[in-house]
Amino acid sequence: MTDRTAGLPRRGALALAAGLLWPLPAARAQGGDPLPSWRDGPRKRALLETVAAITQAGGADFIPPEARIAVFDNDGTLWVEQPIYTQMIFILDRIRTLAPQRPAWREDPDLRAAIAGDLGALAASGTAGLLKLAGAAQAGTTPEEFQAIVAAWLRTARDARWQRPYTALVYQPMLEVLGFLRDNGFTSFIVSGGGVEFVRSFAWPVYGIPPHRVIGSTFALHADERDGRIVLERMPQVDFIDDGPGKPVGIARQIGQRPIIAFGNSDGDLQMLRYTTEGPGRRLGMIIRHDDAEREYAYDRDSHVGRLARALDEAPQRGWQVVSMRQDWARIFPP
Amino acid sequence: MTDRTAGLPRRGALALAAGLLWPLPAARAQGGDPLPSWRDGPRKRALLETVAAITQAGGADFIPPEARIAVFDNDGTLWVEQPIYTQMIFILDRIRTLAPQRPAWREDPDLRAAIAGDLGALAASGTAGLLKLAGAAQAGTTPEEFQAIVAAWLRTARDARWQRPYTALVYQPMLEVLGFLRDNGFTSFIVSGGGVEFVRSFAWPVYGIPPHRVIGSTFALHADERDGRIVLERMPQVDFIDDGPGKPVGIARQIGQRPIIAFGNSDGDLQMLRYTTEGPGRRLGMIIRHDDAEREYAYDRDSHVGRLARALDEAPQRGWQVVSMRQDWARIFPP
Repeated sequence: MTDRTAGLPRRGALALAAGLLWPLPAARAQGGDPLPSWRDGPRKRALLETVAAITQAGGADFIPPEARIAVFDNDGTLWVEQPIYTQMIFILDRIRTLAPQRPAWREDPDLRAAIAGDLGALAASGTAGLLKLAGAAQAGTTPEEFQAIVAAWLRTARDARWQRPYTALVYQPMLEVLGFLRDNGFTSFIVSGGGVEFVRSFAWPVYGIPPHRVIGSTFALHADERDGRIVLERMPQVDFIDDGPGKPVGIARQIGQRPIIAFGNSDGDLQMLRYTTEGPGRRLGMIIRHDDAEREYAYDRDSHVGRLARALDEAPQRGWQVVSMRQDWARIFPP
Repeated sequence: MTDRTAGLPRRGALALAAGLLWPLPAARAQGGDPLPSWRDGPRKRALLETVAAITQAGGADFIPPEARIAVFDNDGTLWVEQPIYTQMIFILDRIRTLAPQRPAWREDPDLRAAIAGDLGALAASGTAGLLKLAGAAQAGTTPEEFQAIVAAWLRTARDARWQRPYTALVYQPMLEVLGFLRDNGFTSFIVSGGGVEFVRSFAWPVYGIPPHRVIGSTFALHADERDGRIVLERMPQVDFIDDGPGKPVGIARQIGQRPIIAFGNSDGDLQMLRYTTEGPGRRLGMIIRHDDAEREYAYDRDSHVGRLARALDEAPQRGWQVVSMRQDWARIFPP
């Protein structure tokens, strides 16, 4: 049988390869508590009560299923983003693999830092730096080729601290939220500052989110012909950065509806949280706060990756729930 | 109750307003023939056999549901596009409404033609002309405001030939295809050269396609603040034309998977049809040919709107099915 799934990794295959045995069914409600990894408290209550109010037919806060849109940041909200974004690790590996054939790269300071594995310099270069390196490392591939390259990398790469695949370092409480919202008629989207095709390569097997419900930063695509076939080639130029003020723009362009619920963890999610909760009617904005150095990481105002300052300061006045990983989550990762 | 549906028209409300009483249930299979408005013949057989092969578990052509992606052009494929695109009629009405407050518009030949209602000049200006006028007519609104304006217009505007709402001039056989594919696990997308927000304003009530599954041409969106809230303002500059070679790009960016089935009707759909059917495994490309002047319109090579020449010439060698509206469709519009 030829490959008919057009670059989409089989859910079972990648989940197995990643050591995740069908995380989503396990994350679903099984008669009892739909959020078993959330400890009782104001954050869990806000989630349960908001969804109950929105789904109660005839209630004052009822929202029909076609308007039940939820958005999730990815890095630091659905999976680990420290000590540096997983996509950056991928790009570093990819750049080192390709470097021997690209001597010109050694003239560029960012590329030189990447080849040397200088994480500090790279973290300081921010989203723009990430995307520049991503362009250099990934240009010339089709979206389908690129997804296959990422999927192959995810099968073998391991996080240095936990020695586990990156796709195993997703937050079990958030998998439960995805399942809980799905069971209540919500349509969930990932709205990531990362490259859209990078996130798409694992969003289906790991989160149950199909490619068309992933919004991310994009590279220019050039439509060309090769051997009598249309080929879409990924160019090195970033044409959209889905971060900060870009997130509401990406949401409006790709979803076309204002979300009802938003989850984020950094100032890059501030505008997405505002755009969501400034809409009329019942809304919910939640910030995942990384305050658990023992089980994961503790960082906020001074972090190069996932800095959280302004959104944290504005959370009380805007009615956003700040989730303490240490207090609110009984478990961090899937069992 | 305040408006919590964020600009999404209620399906029942708009369908009723448009004189369409829940078209989709009627279009679905009710135990028997899933495509009752299609006459028996090679085109209907191609549709039924392709879907049967793709959905047969264990079969050589089986494709899992997560890869069952179908794409549909809108103008001329799902609804009438003659004598000129419906969006152009909307824009003309809108420009005439706004013209008294915009005296500068009379300096521009395209805008002057629009104010004068010169359809010939406008048809000749093509997609680029349409989008320029669209930008002028629609700039300064938010996506939500714009959808409300379009929805209000669709409730009252009538096609001159049939004296029916434009949303009643959709093709019943295509509503049946949408329902048939949905019932067989496909996820369908509209991939239109028209403005994405225009099509989104009616795609849900009329086709059952939610806003996030509509891809179209876009205007630049500017994120701004107004009264302490984030406001997305639609700018007059077109930033993406989802036509011709733009269609595979729009598909790759927004869907992230190569489609299995594509429907189009003009040369603007050529690259979308190619991108779909050049993929490996079983694929289906279909062209709706407008050859029924009595019940609808007859046009192809010489038409300013929906010109069909190259795609028609290439159809045999590429294995595309050319649907004759006259022969293959027992009914054109919903009853």
